[in-house]
Amino acid sequence: MSERVPILQIGDILLVSIQTDLDDQSVLNLQDDLAARVVESAAHGVVIDISAVEIVDSFVGRMLATIAAISRMLDAETVVVGMRPAVAITLVELGLSLGGVSTALNLDLGLRLLERARGGRDGLTAEPTAS
Amino acid sequence: MSERVPILQIGDILLVSIQTDLDDQSVLNLQDDLAARVVESAAHGVVIDISAVEIVDSFVGRMLATIAAISRMLDAETVVVGMRPAVAITLVELGLSLGGVSTALNLDLGLRLLERARGGRDGLTAEPTAS
Repeated sequence: MSERVPILQIGDILLVSIQTDLDDQSVLNLQDDLAARVVESAAHGVVIDISAVEIVDSFVGRMLATIAAISRMLDAETVVVGMRPAVAITLVELGLSLGGVSTALNLDLGLRLLERARGGRDGLTAEPTAS
Repeated sequence: MSERVPILQIGDILLVSIQTDLDDQSVLNLQDDLAARVVESAAHGVVIDISAVEIVDSFVGRMLATIAAISRMLDAETVVVGMRPAVAITLVELGLSLGGVSTALNLDLGLRLLERARGGRDGLTAEPTAS
């Protein structure tokens, strides 16, 4: 059984909260679903919350990097939020420095990072003003 | 193994995305965690996303109502978002009309509902324009 991770939307930001260990098929599904949603919604940012992830392996690390790369191709920045200290240590020990993936301590800070990255355009619930 | 559902925070809104079938202990953990976080963060709203939930039973229905009741005691409004049509049908057939629980079609609309309920006070990262 490969479950599908739900993709939430806040303004033009997509939010994915990873809560379970994903098998290979689920990861592929997530990449497909996310790419489709980025295009469909013209999202400018993707936030991946991994606060529930206690153990990472190189597979999860690669997944994060791949999602970020795909999103960047589609003109959306990716921020990984909620990384536990132990997860950060493991990723570095695995030699996966997640180059090109921004991180923030929590969702709030991640959303702010995306807002700043977009040059201060307001993107959440407010309509973007012509500027 | 009873997993803990992560609770995300956006401004003064808490966000819970239910992705797996929760066993009894996980539901109790979630209620405890959520109550603690509402107090700790002085949150004004709780959004529960159930877009990944395909099958509900009376247990899940009661959980939603209980979380809403606890949150209300702690001065936070609860909105359930992402309910599938089949889930709505089942809840009604079960006689669980979720009285007192607000619903919205998706996260974005749920956040707007909470904003409105709070009389237009700004809660997210974007400033609401006077209108």
